[in-house]
Amino acid sequence: MSDVLLVLNGPNLNLLGERDPEQYGRDTLADIEGAVRTRASSHGFEVDFRQSNYEGELISWIQETRGKVAGLVFNPAGYSHTSVAIADALDLFDAPIVEVHLSNIHKREPFRHHSYVSAVASGVIAGLGAHGYELAVDAVARLAGR
Amino acid sequence: MSDVLLVLNGPNLNLLGERDPEQYGRDTLADIEGAVRTRASSHGFEVDFRQSNYEGELISWIQETRGKVAGLVFNPAGYSHTSVAIADALDLFDAPIVEVHLSNIHKREPFRHHSYVSAVASGVIAGLGAHGYELAVDAVARLAGR
Amino acid sequence: MSDVLLVLNGPNLNLLGERDPEQYGRDTLADIEGAVRTRASSHGFEVDFRQSNYEGELISWIQETRGKVAGLVFNPAGYSHTSVAIADALDLFDAPIVEVHLSNIHKREPFRHHSYVSAVASGVIAGLGAHGYELAVDAVARLAGR
Amino acid sequence: MSDVLLVLNGPNLNLLGERDPEQYGRDTLADIEGAVRTRASSHGFEVDFRQSNYEGELISWIQETRGKVAGLVFNPAGYSHTSVAIADALDLFDAPIVEVHLSNIHKREPFRHHSYVSAVASGVIAGLGAHGYELAVDAVARLAGR
Amino acid sequence: MSDVLLVLNGPNLNLLGERDPEQYGRDTLADIEGAVRTRASSHGFEVDFRQSNYEGELISWIQETRGKVAGLVFNPAGYSHTSVAIADALDLFDAPIVEVHLSNIHKREPFRHHSYVSAVASGVIAGLGAHGYELAVDAVARLAGR
Amino acid sequence: MSDVLLVLNGPNLNLLGERDPEQYGRDTLADIEGAVRTRASSHGFEVDFRQSNYEGELISWIQETRGKVAGLVFNPAGYSHTSVAIADALDLFDAPIVEVHLSNIHKREPFRHHSYVSAVASGVIAGLGAHGYELAVDAVARLAGR
Amino acid sequence: MSDVLLVLNGPNLNLLGERDPEQYGRDTLADIEGAVRTRASSHGFEVDFRQSNYEGELISWIQETRGKVAGLVFNPAGYSHTSVAIADALDLFDAPIVEVHLSNIHKREPFRHHSYVSAVASGVIAGLGAHGYELAVDAVARLAGR
Amino acid sequence: MSDVLLVLNGPNLNLLGERDPEQYGRDTLADIEGAVRTRASSHGFEVDFRQSNYEGELISWIQETRGKVAGLVFNPAGYSHTSVAIADALDLFDAPIVEVHLSNIHKREPFRHHSYVSAVASGVIAGLGAHGYELAVDAVARLAGR
Amino acid sequence: MSDVLLVLNGPNLNLLGERDPEQYGRDTLADIEGAVRTRASSHGFEVDFRQSNYEGELISWIQETRGKVAGLVFNPAGYSHTSVAIADALDLFDAPIVEVHLSNIHKREPFRHHSYVSAVASGVIAGLGAHGYELAVDAVARLAGR
Amino acid sequence: MSDVLLVLNGPNLNLLGERDPEQYGRDTLADIEGAVRTRASSHGFEVDFRQSNYEGELISWIQETRGKVAGLVFNPAGYSHTSVAIADALDLFDAPIVEVHLSNIHKREPFRHHSYVSAVASGVIAGLGAHGYELAVDAVARLAGR
Amino acid sequence: MSDVLLVLNGPNLNLLGERDPEQYGRDTLADIEGAVRTRASSHGFEVDFRQSNYEGELISWIQETRGKVAGLVFNPAGYSHTSVAIADALDLFDAPIVEVHLSNIHKREPFRHHSYVSAVASGVIAGLGAHGYELAVDAVARLAGR
Amino acid sequence: MSDVLLVLNGPNLNLLGERDPEQYGRDTLADIEGAVRTRASSHGFEVDFRQSNYEGELISWIQETRGKVAGLVFNPAGYSHTSVAIADALDLFDAPIVEVHLSNIHKREPFRHHSYVSAVASGVIAGLGAHGYELAVDAVARLAGR
Repeated sequence: MSDVLLVLNGPNLNLLGERDPEQYGRDTLADIEGAVRTRASSHGFEVDFRQSNYEGELISWIQETRGKVAGLVFNPAGYSHTSVAIADALDLFDAPIVEVHLSNIHKREPFRHHSYVSAVASGVIAGLGAHGYELAVDAVARLAGR
Repeated sequence: MSDVLLVLNGPNLNLLGERDPEQYGRDTLADIEGAVRTRASSHGFEVDFRQSNYEGELISWIQETRGKVAGLVFNPAGYSHTSVAIADALDLFDAPIVEVHLSNIHKREPFRHHSYVSAVASGVIAGLGAHGYELAVDAVARLAGR
Repeated sequence: MSDVLLVLNGPNLNLLGERDPEQYGRDTLADIEGAVRTRASSHGFEVDFRQSNYEGELISWIQETRGKVAGLVFNPAGYSHTSVAIADALDLFDAPIVEVHLSNIHKREPFRHHSYVSAVASGVIAGLGAHGYELAVDAVARLAGR
Repeated sequence: MSDVLLVLNGPNLNLLGERDPEQYGRDTLADIEGAVRTRASSHGFEVDFRQSNYEGELISWIQETRGKVAGLVFNPAGYSHTSVAIADALDLFDAPIVEVHLSNIHKREPFRHHSYVSAVASGVIAGLGAHGYELAVDAVARLAGR
Repeated sequence: MSDVLLVLNGPNLNLLGERDPEQYGRDTLADIEGAVRTRASSHGFEVDFRQSNYEGELISWIQETRGKVAGLVFNPAGYSHTSVAIADALDLFDAPIVEVHLSNIHKREPFRHHSYVSAVASGVIAGLGAHGYELAVDAVARLAGR
Repeated sequence: MSDVLLVLNGPNLNLLGERDPEQYGRDTLADIEGAVRTRASSHGFEVDFRQSNYEGELISWIQETRGKVAGLVFNPAGYSHTSVAIADALDLFDAPIVEVHLSNIHKREPFRHHSYVSAVASGVIAGLGAHGYELAVDAVARLAGR
Repeated sequence: MSDVLLVLNGPNLNLLGERDPEQYGRDTLADIEGAVRTRASSHGFEVDFRQSNYEGELISWIQETRGKVAGLVFNPAGYSHTSVAIADALDLFDAPIVEVHLSNIHKREPFRHHSYVSAVASGVIAGLGAHGYELAVDAVARLAGR
Repeated sequence: MSDVLLVLNGPNLNLLGERDPEQYGRDTLADIEGAVRTRASSHGFEVDFRQSNYEGELISWIQETRGKVAGLVFNPAGYSHTSVAIADALDLFDAPIVEVHLSNIHKREPFRHHSYVSAVASGVIAGLGAHGYELAVDAVARLAGR
Repeated sequence: MSDVLLVLNGPNLNLLGERDPEQYGRDTLADIEGAVRTRASSHGFEVDFRQSNYEGELISWIQETRGKVAGLVFNPAGYSHTSVAIADALDLFDAPIVEVHLSNIHKREPFRHHSYVSAVASGVIAGLGAHGYELAVDAVARLAGR
Repeated sequence: MSDVLLVLNGPNLNLLGERDPEQYGRDTLADIEGAVRTRASSHGFEVDFRQSNYEGELISWIQETRGKVAGLVFNPAGYSHTSVAIADALDLFDAPIVEVHLSNIHKREPFRHHSYVSAVASGVIAGLGAHGYELAVDAVARLAGR
Repeated sequence: MSDVLLVLNGPNLNLLGERDPEQYGRDTLADIEGAVRTRASSHGFEVDFRQSNYEGELISWIQETRGKVAGLVFNPAGYSHTSVAIADALDLFDAPIVEVHLSNIHKREPFRHHSYVSAVASGVIAGLGAHGYELAVDAVARLAGR
Repeated sequence: MSDVLLVLNGPNLNLLGERDPEQYGRDTLADIEGAVRTRASSHGFEVDFRQSNYEGELISWIQETRGKVAGLVFNPAGYSHTSVAIADALDLFDAPIVEVHLSNIHKREPFRHHSYVSAVASGVIAGLGAHGYELAVDAVARLAGR
């Protein structure tokens, strides 16, 4: 089995640390990447860490890595609530998927309470900020049998 | 009038044959392309066969081919249910449009029962698998007066 | 296996050609029957072609032909949207079923967007006028393994 | 008071035993008729046992038997969920009415959770298969003061 | 133009006078027929007065009288709220249509507030009891140019 | 009992004949008043005919005429769909009330399908243009026992 | 297999006979217990008859009797409509469950039309008063193979 | 502060002048760009005028210009109604935003009545055609303190 | 054509400057009137500027000025969301109508997101404070061909 | 601070004592005024007691008394459920507001369960008849610090 | 008649004074109990004052005190919105019931706008803090004829 | 600060390992308690581990431990979806709260998609089985600043 852990970040996450710190915390995406790499290496994972604002690019990345990675940590951000196409791509994925949200989406606008991704993920972690990524790495490791 | 038949395929259709064969059948997109070309040539059509995971790219293709093709066979896949922008592009299209779905979307999750594309297509064919594409070619040929 | 193809037509289709030609086209039901017979014979099918305004009679016909026909092409017309009982009868049918609508029901009143029949049919063809019946014959033939 | 117990069966119940045995059990309508007659005779009832696929025929039967029967056991099947007209006919009925459903309609599609008939019946028995008819006979007997 | 006025009565209206007199009044259908004939003859109309419990029979009567009558007074009763097929038949009718309800359906259960027939009728008269039929005759006469 | 028939007209009806003649006909409010007076005098009624754009004025008129008129013919126009206060005033009225709509409100925007007034009126007449007022006069006369 | 039949009664049923006799009848819970014991002994059942106003106590009773009783007759009363937790407990139960309602809940307030319990019960009996308990005993006996 | 005014145009606006002129007017996007430049220069603005069919590209442009422009005039077209991700990007924008729609979206299909963008824009201008862009330039100038 | 521009202000706008300045700004209605007169005179308009708390008075003003003014700038305030009668009056108006809202109603309570007036106005301007009135004057001038 | 207590009564309350005494009690508005004056004087309040059927007049009264009264007791009657404009006026009010309903609006038609006024009042008292006014006087006195 | 006034307090009210003082005020439950006793004794009532976090215990208390108390002041707190069982218990209560809410539930989350208790209480007082309890005591006294 | 970590388990979790292992896994609650204690001790926490079937007991436990524990890991099970009272209790809690669900509630019945608890928790972890509890311990440790 692959030693690579894929970590995908959806639209606007490249600006993390600048947007509404009360909702999203002060960590930048680079901070998160660092924490994820540290945690992942403790499970023997290499990390493939990407961000895109394009729904289509996220879909293509999910397709291309099928069969090549040990698991997926995915923060779909704004596409969580609107993308059937991303959920369809994940439905074809063949490794554990853990969905992460920095903020507690259940405290926010009603349209953020539903995620198409949740229905095809193994598990969901929300509201725990950057730490949620680290927990998701642990979760994928456990699901991948490490 | 043009002799070209445009066939557009939306997100994840490049993986056909791998996803849930009970829903989508075992044909790959290449198999479908072959069958479409055969059927189209019987009507004197050349085929321009494309697939994209990008909503924007599908819109651009629809725009670029306006006035240059005899008709469109379109499987919008996951974008059927979420894309007003694709439907707006089709509204400007000047040739017959037949929407195709491999699976019977009416037997699936409620969010798949509605397609923005249906309201701007001439006709809709669903649930007949790869054969649905061939029937759609026949339908476009008839609508185009062949 | 039987060589008979059952073609059922729901309420008001006996008046075809007189009702709103923009929606339904100018073909009469006799025109459609002719086209269906021609197409069906090319697949080696005999055709049993019927129309009724009675929900109960349509149910009885579906029941009586079980096990005796190779497939069903069915335009349930107004009963599509209101009849659980017809859908229950089709659920007991043991041959391929293709639902046909002359008009594109997705462009019309919201109550026409839902069909109880679609959930028990193999496939659905809508908006292609009388030609839709011919395509449905092809579809049943394919599903019946011809 | 009349000694006759009317037992009405709605659409598709003539095919009982053939449709989805997990939902409806393996008893045929003849089996049910037999069990009902036995149970009814223990209460001193004669049984008038009928089935129709026609909403209008069911209405007419309900009308014709008014004032002539001791009670009604009624399985409206698919018309439960769609027929205001049958419920209006029952509203004019002058003897106890017990509605029966073979399957537990509350475990099935949402459109089966509501019955127009329930609002005009004395009681409802659902999910107990053919035995539910026997219990309904007991219930009518009790309501009729036997 | 024809001198015949068609008056159609839907399910259960044959029992008028027996059902909930507070809602429907004490007139029987024969009483209404008499009043209608008197009023109609004052406009020079002959009356074709019918009642059916069958949705399909009502549809067939509407179809058969097309082009042969001066107008239609129609009380669709319970089918008002559930029959798309009857409304489709009326859509093909070529003379004035006035819908009548004996009771004021707006004071009753919510499912009686909507009538598919109203959307294809010229006018609607509700809540005026048997007198509403007489007014409907006047209305058809006026619409027919008498 | 009073010989006066109150006829109330809601907002914008003073402009009748100018607004969308396809919906409302070409009669002016003066034309309607004339026809109403003629018809009313045939029943021995004097007519008190008023129009107001003010919800409060309509309420006050309804209150002031209680106990002083034989009945009310009321076209509440735009207030039909939004005024609980007018309906409350009518609830206190002690003579027959017939609601009139010139256009068939059931063919128009969904917000026009519901009228608060209908739930407190004796009857409702819609879609019959100016003639509907005359029929409403007849209806009030009948309800008032003339 | 156990000879014990568990009969559970939800909140306020201890006051039976005092609450709205038109809805619930005049039998007290002791009357019902007597009738149930008689009927149960005819099937060779001992009866464990309990009532609680506490959702938690009902859950604990359901848990404690798992594997120790032959079946359950359950009137969840007010908790029918609001308790996911009771339904979850029943989902773990390993013997037949028949839900009973004294009144016909379909004739009452809309919030009483849905029961979480119905989705995990074998069958449902409603509207037959105290007699419904006796029929439920018969039903459990039949389901338990007696 | 920057002298640059960003003007973003969403999907299909490149085809302006060709689509349904009754809805959108006859101006092309180049015509609008000209008018905008003229109006903007009267406020001392340079204009950065862009169009994209890609949701991701629009997001990236919004991100890249943060802190570098004096304001944003934005016609999100079809993405108005479906893109949470674009609204999230705008939420991070640090200059005035005025949303423009050529057509009056409140007169069109219900799904066009809601815009995710409106909840994060300063103001909204709809239904005034190409002139709406010019007014939006004025509005941004005023909001930017010019 | 008339040189008069009608500017109508709905309920509570007379108190502008006192109510929630964060929502509505600090300008009083007199400030707005001044700015409107200045802007209007630059287009050669005289201004007829009015405010009323009465729905009926606003309707009457709209009626009285038909045919006498070049256009209407209208802030219906609280009546936007509840008045069918005002929208009906505007439907009869024969000059351009631009609806203005001081606050961005799309950021506020859901009941403020819908305006009956929007469906009969040419255009809508929201969220731009007092400046929105000036832009609305420009818009009416353009629509009136100045 | 002012010693005046404003008491406003909405539409139809002038007829109190005549309308449905079971809902509203037998007290007339004069009876209530008397009781209110007595109770108010015990708190040292003078009473300004008014009633109007006009939404606009109620708004104007609320506006005119701002800054001049110690508090408001308000029974908005039918306008509770439909008037955004009155709620907007109250939002500008600068003294305690207590909403009163004579009947228990939660036991009545669903459209009476929601009041726009409740969201801007300090407190709400419903179902306690004329006595509710006295309690509201006490409540305003307490809120005003007496 | 009993001299005892029952005062019931639902879940979490034991912590009053600690939870969100802006919503609930700074009074503790002991403060409220004191004020209630004082007010009650002025009407000659003894007070039985209780609080429970258990839905079942509240139901049992309501049952046990039937026939033994002069009235009930009840703040059902969180159970207001979810407990059919408590409402059913109150339906059996034989003395006046006044429901109290400290906060104005109509200004809060939508799920707090509906209370099952309101439909079975005589009256409701909300938003007046601890003083609301005192007013409720007055209201019960009046309803009990003191 | 306290060293105690509270772990609360809602109804039916005492039966873990017996209920639908595909949904909930094969771990018993004792297995989970062991894993939680191990993980907690690595953060220097003692664990107070409890389970109850009683909503009221869960509320009382939450109240009693306020100010005495470092944080809360809470699996509310069936009460997640129905208990406003538990959420109100949590709202008063003064330490970090992490909600855990063993199964992925987003893949199950719609009524399980909403949790009242989520709106008052810091974070939510769902679908990761028993491992989710361990991650929740980590999350509380991080939130508590360890």
